[in-house]
Amino acid sequence: MFESAEVGHSIPKDEYRVREPKLREALLKAQYDLLAKAKFPVVIIIGGVDGAGKGETVNLLNEWMDPRHIVTRAFGEVSDEEAERPPMWRFWRALPPKGRIGVLFGSWYTQPIVDRVIGKTKAPALMQSIEEIRHFESMLAAEGVLILKFWFHLSKEAQKKRLKSLEKDPKTRWRVTDTDWARFKIYDRFREISEHTLRETSTGEAPWFIVEGTDPNYRYLTVGTLLLEAMQKRLADKNGGGSSFKPAPLEPVLDKHNVLNALNYKQSLTRAEYARRLEKFQGRLNLLTRDPRFRNKSLIAVFEGQDAAGKGSSIRRITGALDARHYQVIPIAAPTEEERAQPYMWRFWRHLPRKGRVTIFDRSWYGRVLVERVEKFCSEYDWMRAYHEINDFEEQLVRNDVILVKFWVAITKEEQLKRFRERQSIAFKQFKITEEDWRNRKKWGDYERAVCDMVERTSTEIAPWNVVPANDKLFARIEMLRTLCERVERAL
Amino acid sequence: MFESAEVGHSIPKDEYRVREPKLREALLKAQYDLLAKAKFPVVIIIGGVDGAGKGETVNLLNEWMDPRHIVTRAFGEVSDEEAERPPMWRFWRALPPKGRIGVLFGSWYTQPIVDRVIGKTKAPALMQSIEEIRHFESMLAAEGVLILKFWFHLSKEAQKKRLKSLEKDPKTRWRVTDTDWARFKIYDRFREISEHTLRETSTGEAPWFIVEGTDPNYRYLTVGTLLLEAMQKRLADKNGGGSSFKPAPLEPVLDKHNVLNALNYKQSLTRAEYARRLEKFQGRLNLLTRDPRFRNKSLIAVFEGQDAAGKGSSIRRITGALDARHYQVIPIAAPTEEERAQPYMWRFWRHLPRKGRVTIFDRSWYGRVLVERVEKFCSEYDWMRAYHEINDFEEQLVRNDVILVKFWVAITKEEQLKRFRERQSIAFKQFKITEEDWRNRKKWGDYERAVCDMVERTSTEIAPWNVVPANDKLFARIEMLRTLCERVERAL
Repeated sequence: MFESAEVGHSIPKDEYRVREPKLREALLKAQYDLLAKAKFPVVIIIGGVDGAGKGETVNLLNEWMDPRHIVTRAFGEVSDEEAERPPMWRFWRALPPKGRIGVLFGSWYTQPIVDRVIGKTKAPALMQSIEEIRHFESMLAAEGVLILKFWFHLSKEAQKKRLKSLEKDPKTRWRVTDTDWARFKIYDRFREISEHTLRETSTGEAPWFIVEGTDPNYRYLTVGTLLLEAMQKRLADKNGGGSSFKPAPLEPVLDKHNVLNALNYKQSLTRAEYARRLEKFQGRLNLLTRDPRFRNKSLIAVFEGQDAAGKGSSIRRITGALDARHYQVIPIAAPTEEERAQPYMWRFWRHLPRKGRVTIFDRSWYGRVLVERVEKFCSEYDWMRAYHEINDFEEQLVRNDVILVKFWVAITKEEQLKRFRERQSIAFKQFKITEEDWRNRKKWGDYERAVCDMVERTSTEIAPWNVVPANDKLFARIEMLRTLCERVERAL
Repeated sequence: MFESAEVGHSIPKDEYRVREPKLREALLKAQYDLLAKAKFPVVIIIGGVDGAGKGETVNLLNEWMDPRHIVTRAFGEVSDEEAERPPMWRFWRALPPKGRIGVLFGSWYTQPIVDRVIGKTKAPALMQSIEEIRHFESMLAAEGVLILKFWFHLSKEAQKKRLKSLEKDPKTRWRVTDTDWARFKIYDRFREISEHTLRETSTGEAPWFIVEGTDPNYRYLTVGTLLLEAMQKRLADKNGGGSSFKPAPLEPVLDKHNVLNALNYKQSLTRAEYARRLEKFQGRLNLLTRDPRFRNKSLIAVFEGQDAAGKGSSIRRITGALDARHYQVIPIAAPTEEERAQPYMWRFWRHLPRKGRVTIFDRSWYGRVLVERVEKFCSEYDWMRAYHEINDFEEQLVRNDVILVKFWVAITKEEQLKRFRERQSIAFKQFKITEEDWRNRKKWGDYERAVCDMVERTSTEIAPWNVVPANDKLFARIEMLRTLCERVERAL
């Protein structure tokens, strides 16, 4: 794979002088087009061996284009705020919004490769990282992000020469550290692991470009030209790069049984029994979240359910058990302007709790496969791929000591009608019932189908759905409190 | 000041039972009104002695109202990302947007009081903190934030009793730590310093309410009622709480001399001299930002200037000297939706650099006293108070090892005309000239006046304005590079 980048590519000075100004002007124009249309962001990933000119190339890109609209991020030490979230959190934070170019110096590739090279991880761990990266980049591509990945390569001999020549010049000596030489010693292993990783992650939607790093002119023109062509092609694309992928049809519904109508909605509690259990489980949840072992965990509870199913009042029974300093409730409504300029999942990543904290989502990332699917706010392709993306996301959470508990608060169609009418007749509850609620109700069947598909596709062993019959509110609240307690207990 | 909170206030259980449900319903209604109108945020500050029921009260507020629209933040240890910015940064991050209630558990009061109590700081430092807090809260109030500050008080005797009773009960024992008893020992000093601080910061726009902490019923009803009344009053206020303050008139302009026309616009450089100096100063700036001593500093460069003055090209000469991994250019355009829901300065605070980094603002917080003033995008009151707020902000930056360099890039009216015409005639520069530029040009006099006022009021010894004549672009670029180098050198 690297052989083609060891052939001594070079561009003579004269040729460079002719081509550079044209490339530069075209790049600047493409950048302004991108900015004006603001239809998609560009993510440029920079990786490769030391001394192959990564830094210089990034600087030059910033010089050629307008640096005001480029966001360059280098990923050094993990900050403590980053360390308390899943590893991908710091990259989500750094994604450029639509219309901008983000240059990621070091990226989601660095840690998996380095860990494997120094023997901190074994082959299966690297394989898993590779798989995750493929999913992640595939999601970015589906969201319209233009991804370009550049790997700067030097042969072993060339790297040695380069490091020595940098060391000789007093002006560049500072750039060569002991770490560089230590890394040079493991060149072969680094090369082998990198090659494997690159091969496995060079996909049609996010290909790797190997750039020979010896000759600066060659390096600069290569990166510049590849970037220009990719941007021009995408800017000219009327479909905005959207995939032409046609999802497979969903399983047909052959009988009337499903996870919703299989529930026993008759379950109920008396007021007295409710009060007794409420105190018991609230006390237990309170103790559990104050347990010293909880300081290394965090809890995310997701509430979804039909309109008027009682999500809000259930959430209040849970927050009532917690210390207000340790939880946040995130009500999910329409995305803000900054959120709309990012991939769909971005607005959930930004709310992930630190260790020892609780975050409750009142509606969640499942909006995509529920309301957005039914109301056709997104394409079939978008909500079909969401199942997979959601599973990936939740797996990352759980693997990073998040206790994830998902509730579908379920009521029957008759019960909903009763509650809607009740709301209309009680003055201080009228604000809770709108025209939209009645409209949604007309699509009961579509929503039911969406819920069943969702449960089928996203109820995983690590993050199962808890479908709770809630025709009796008291029963449902206790059921959810009890489930939360059990899940936290099991995790500690 | 605390005497009235040591008289043994209490509310009998029966009375509480009657009043609580009404208060609760009214609070919830006020909260939904606030949310629906989304005209202003509510900031509730919670301070006071340990064991006076701060935590319980905050939990109760979250229980009474809808916790989904309350953002409760407790400020524990400073994270490393916070430690690298001015102390107020963490509070700016935590401000609730319009329509929401933010409960700040611990606040900008904690550190100044604690530092003084333990003798880490002396009286003048506390005085300075108090002065800064007054300015900060005055700014919040002017931005429409409804501020309520609650101080939970217990007499020395009552605190002792409370801590002992908490310790006796196995269910609450965990809440009393050694720190609590250590703090109890310095009760008198804590009381004295707190009292002083509260007295000095209890202003008309952000008053303190002292709440006697002994009786829970009294405590809860007091806080709830005060909050309700303040919210209801503000919600009913047609002016949205905006101040009726009439600013003093600006000094009249009696002659034609000002900082702009006093400049020597004839200064220029030859191409050759420019090339020589460019290399010299870019090299110097590069070395300076790589100096180990720079790792504890950060650099913020602000660029303002007339349209077509050459801000963009000057910025590119500066970024050309820097490593792309260490700087960010922030172009300031219209605020986003999330930014509009916050006080004016919020969108600049969010971009403050970490240590060892450079942030370049292409236009800045000065927009308020320039374009917003001239185009009447904000009221006279808003831009008049901005001078003061800006000086406060910049002082915080400089005190926290930010090297702040501000440039006004100045051209004459004739030079601007020449450049506008040039832009119109060159194909690839046409996107740089719009109708708006011509419109702005018609208000040249108003802008000139605004610039002169700005320089007069915000050119301080810690953050002076550098007004650079830029009819000759080459001269101006070198002038700015040289100034940057000098300022960084002096700071190291």
